[in-house]
Amino acid sequence: MRILFIGDVVGSPGRDMVSEYLPKLKKQLKPTVTIVNGENAASGKGITEKIYKGFMDAGAQAVTLGNHSFDKKEIFNFIDSATHMIRPANYPQGVPGKGYTFVKVNQIEVAIINLMGRTFLPANDCPFQKAEEIIEIAKKRTPYIFVDFHAEATSEKQAMGWFLDGKVTAVVGTHTHVQTADERILHDGTAYITDVGMTGPYDGILGVEKETIIQRFLTNLPARFEVSEGREQLNGVVIDVDPKSGLAKSIQRILINEDHPYIHH
Amino acid sequence: MRILFIGDVVGSPGRDMVSEYLPKLKKQLKPTVTIVNGENAASGKGITEKIYKGFMDAGAQAVTLGNHSFDKKEIFNFIDSATHMIRPANYPQGVPGKGYTFVKVNQIEVAIINLMGRTFLPANDCPFQKAEEIIEIAKKRTPYIFVDFHAEATSEKQAMGWFLDGKVTAVVGTHTHVQTADERILHDGTAYITDVGMTGPYDGILGVEKETIIQRFLTNLPARFEVSEGREQLNGVVIDVDPKSGLAKSIQRILINEDHPYIHH
Amino acid sequence: MRILFIGDVVGSPGRDMVSEYLPKLKKQLKPTVTIVNGENAASGKGITEKIYKGFMDAGAQAVTLGNHSFDKKEIFNFIDSATHMIRPANYPQGVPGKGYTFVKVNQIEVAIINLMGRTFLPANDCPFQKAEEIIEIAKKRTPYIFVDFHAEATSEKQAMGWFLDGKVTAVVGTHTHVQTADERILHDGTAYITDVGMTGPYDGILGVEKETIIQRFLTNLPARFEVSEGREQLNGVVIDVDPKSGLAKSIQRILINEDHPYIHH
Amino acid sequence: MRILFIGDVVGSPGRDMVSEYLPKLKKQLKPTVTIVNGENAASGKGITEKIYKGFMDAGAQAVTLGNHSFDKKEIFNFIDSATHMIRPANYPQGVPGKGYTFVKVNQIEVAIINLMGRTFLPANDCPFQKAEEIIEIAKKRTPYIFVDFHAEATSEKQAMGWFLDGKVTAVVGTHTHVQTADERILHDGTAYITDVGMTGPYDGILGVEKETIIQRFLTNLPARFEVSEGREQLNGVVIDVDPKSGLAKSIQRILINEDHPYIHH
Ligand SMILES: [Fe+2]
Ligand SMILES: [Fe+2]
Ligand SMILES: [Fe+2]
Ligand SMILES: [Fe+2]
Ligand SMILES: [Fe+2]
Ligand SMILES: [Fe+2]
Ligand SMILES: [Fe+2]
Ligand SMILES: [Fe+2]
Repeated sequence: MRILFIGDVVGSPGRDMVSEYLPKLKKQLKPTVTIVNGENAASGKGITEKIYKGFMDAGAQAVTLGNHSFDKKEIFNFIDSATHMIRPANYPQGVPGKGYTFVKVNQIEVAIINLMGRTFLPANDCPFQKAEEIIEIAKKRTPYIFVDFHAEATSEKQAMGWFLDGKVTAVVGTHTHVQTADERILHDGTAYITDVGMTGPYDGILGVEKETIIQRFLTNLPARFEVSEGREQLNGVVIDVDPKSGLAKSIQRILINEDHPYIHH
Repeated sequence: MRILFIGDVVGSPGRDMVSEYLPKLKKQLKPTVTIVNGENAASGKGITEKIYKGFMDAGAQAVTLGNHSFDKKEIFNFIDSATHMIRPANYPQGVPGKGYTFVKVNQIEVAIINLMGRTFLPANDCPFQKAEEIIEIAKKRTPYIFVDFHAEATSEKQAMGWFLDGKVTAVVGTHTHVQTADERILHDGTAYITDVGMTGPYDGILGVEKETIIQRFLTNLPARFEVSEGREQLNGVVIDVDPKSGLAKSIQRILINEDHPYIHH
Repeated sequence: MRILFIGDVVGSPGRDMVSEYLPKLKKQLKPTVTIVNGENAASGKGITEKIYKGFMDAGAQAVTLGNHSFDKKEIFNFIDSATHMIRPANYPQGVPGKGYTFVKVNQIEVAIINLMGRTFLPANDCPFQKAEEIIEIAKKRTPYIFVDFHAEATSEKQAMGWFLDGKVTAVVGTHTHVQTADERILHDGTAYITDVGMTGPYDGILGVEKETIIQRFLTNLPARFEVSEGREQLNGVVIDVDPKSGLAKSIQRILINEDHPYIHH
Repeated sequence: MRILFIGDVVGSPGRDMVSEYLPKLKKQLKPTVTIVNGENAASGKGITEKIYKGFMDAGAQAVTLGNHSFDKKEIFNFIDSATHMIRPANYPQGVPGKGYTFVKVNQIEVAIINLMGRTFLPANDCPFQKAEEIIEIAKKRTPYIFVDFHAEATSEKQAMGWFLDGKVTAVVGTHTHVQTADERILHDGTAYITDVGMTGPYDGILGVEKETIIQRFLTNLPARFEVSEGREQLNGVVIDVDPKSGLAKSIQRILINEDHPYIHH
């Protein structure tokens, strides 16, 4: 049992990387389930139905989102029919969509949960309480539970990792767009990484054209962010899961860019 | 020419790791200059004179700080005499201490600059402007300029990296206490990493006892943070520098913990 | 039916003002119920049992709190027995104490609710949802419902006012320590004011010694805040209530300081 | 010597109130100088040349701005020629426009300074330091110095008031859009009010259509803010100045809405 996860896909450079490398990675790694974070897939902000379907066609079984979930208005038209697209579960009651889903592949069911942090981010419902509620439901169906915790602060992410240690297969962080080097199996068997990193431009700032961001830091003037062009990267993780316990055996980072070219092993 | 940098040392577990591994790392890597971030060295908050001198005795030539610089009141007594201890240079005018220093080893002079981000952190002076001002001064003395950018947001840190690309030897991030996997040489020759990570407890949350932090996220009640006990880690980077240009040839992450045990190569 | 409310009492100067003027105000205004916000009553941070009882003895029937509720550890010892002391109701589940109470005076029962905003403040549960839940309970017992909404942002406070308009007797804001001049009866009969202001030092900054605060803005250095000495003020509101509907007929600001001396009318 | 100041004008409802009441107020109060904060004058965000000229034609001698200064791109085309329009002086170096101006009426010159707070707002240069720099320049020309401090936190605003007490004629706060009731003459003669309040819709939330804002607090979904329609208000202050010292003799709030109808005295 193996889970492949691809970090925040940003704009067309990110989608290009998914199209090019997801088939190769799947061929090489043979994951049971593949999940893509798509919150920035539509020109850096939000997602469209076409893009969602593109990810599924490229081999993903589920798409997670984040604080940019609702940036493209089109989402309100297809969110209810997008069976395996989830937005953070701790959005307040009444918000369209759902925060977790079950994916079934070859008789194996995997629960996928999306949560969002609250430190330096909008005040949604408590992600820790919400995690507990959903895990209680999920545990009745499957021991395989994957959590994409979309959050800014390293403290909140590590807290979620330890909080869910032994209760879920994996807690992987997204949102900062920078891969961290702290992937590990926690004490009680949960795979953890603070941030998986992003998939898209390699030479921008979090995927955005760098001159714009630098100018904004220098001037505080309003700016229109454009997805950066040029070289590209893909960031992900692959998690090996013990089929009996549902706990993780290993977690490995995936980093593809010109400095770390993809090599089929 | 080689620079060794050790990320935020937290409490006595962090100081123990420095005592144990800094001599080994120096023997193995033979850095020209060794720098330690000590903002959390005194029980997680601030630094004392004894600890500063301990780092120097253990083989460091300079100590950088961050948002916790002034947490121990004792600092006001020795900051002026601590020649190679620097606090973020963009603290407002009138704040004790200095934001950069020059270290001379075997005729080689290295400028070391400490700056602090402003995103999700107090509103100090502009770190970008301040960087430019100091670099202009430093360039007159040496091509070797090392920047410890203590900041929270990945966007601000990447912005600083690209902003100083080609102008300094290295921009390394500190403060989030989690090592990132994005170390690289930028287009124009500056070594960059978003965060070096911390040195101290391996099983806490940013170095703090984990139950306390989890409880605070669950309740928002006030809490007293204690440095975590148990297993330990050391995080750092080593940068190889072109002796003529002062630009970086390589940057490598150092990560020592039970999952990544130290092996002398 | 009339409600008297005294804004955030800060330290001993604030308690002195309550001792001196609350009896006078009660004699003059003859409120049915008197409520005091006591979150800063103990040296600027938190509250003690002695202070709580002092407010009750001085003529209050209930004490509300805010983000400083738990600053004095002593509160955990008496919060359960302090029948008419409430802390924000939207603290997470599991936090000691309660968020609303009923006070009965001469057969008239008044529900008092304390809520806390989330903009620029910790991420507690949604105050809007929590308000609806409690009001549903309270409505079964009484048409008189008083809400102390402890919040920073004017937008969140006005939003709460309009959200509860016609559903409660009054929504009065606390926390900014500055009285606003926008007291009014909203469209559907709810009394509203963005902030009642504070009770305590008149010449400090929000009650704190002013030089300390100015120095912190100038330097960003840590500082120990002391309650300011010297001249004092009392800020409050008095609300006249329609006995049948429970809606408000009028809301008037009370402001006592050297520039607005107390005069018995 | 008398100064009339009108708080944040929001959209066409605000501009209508200025057109209707500014002539009346000028006729009644005969201010030496009239200043309008116009940061929200163009549909709630920013300002256009036509609107700026409209304010001047309606009788203002200067227009101040705030965090929304640059929301309308058109400003970059006319900011240099708009002699008496100022944006916060503590925007970083290189930002178009200027932060203070001198207005001369009947041989009397008044310095007008616009500054912006940094608490809960973008990290610009230090407003306290910048204030000191500009006041030193202004003092050489005139004892009449008016400061519009555009800031969120009551602590930062009170700190600025006390910091400049005795050095300027008046420090009036803007930005929160809610008038405060703490207008006063500080110890050393400076007129102070934490916030003047806004000019525009009376039944919205800070001028914005209220249902949108409430929905955003309930859901955290993106929303498009529209200026509210319906009843209107005007908020301002009038300051009487000692002609010799340039210090303030009195400050009075102006509040015009259906609950406080305008009456010519
Ligand atoms: Fe993202
Ligand atoms: Fe995100
Ligand atoms: Fe640190
Ligand atoms: Fe730090
Ligand atoms: Fe308070
Ligand atoms: Fe408060
Ligand atoms: Fe405004
Ligand atoms: Fe504003």
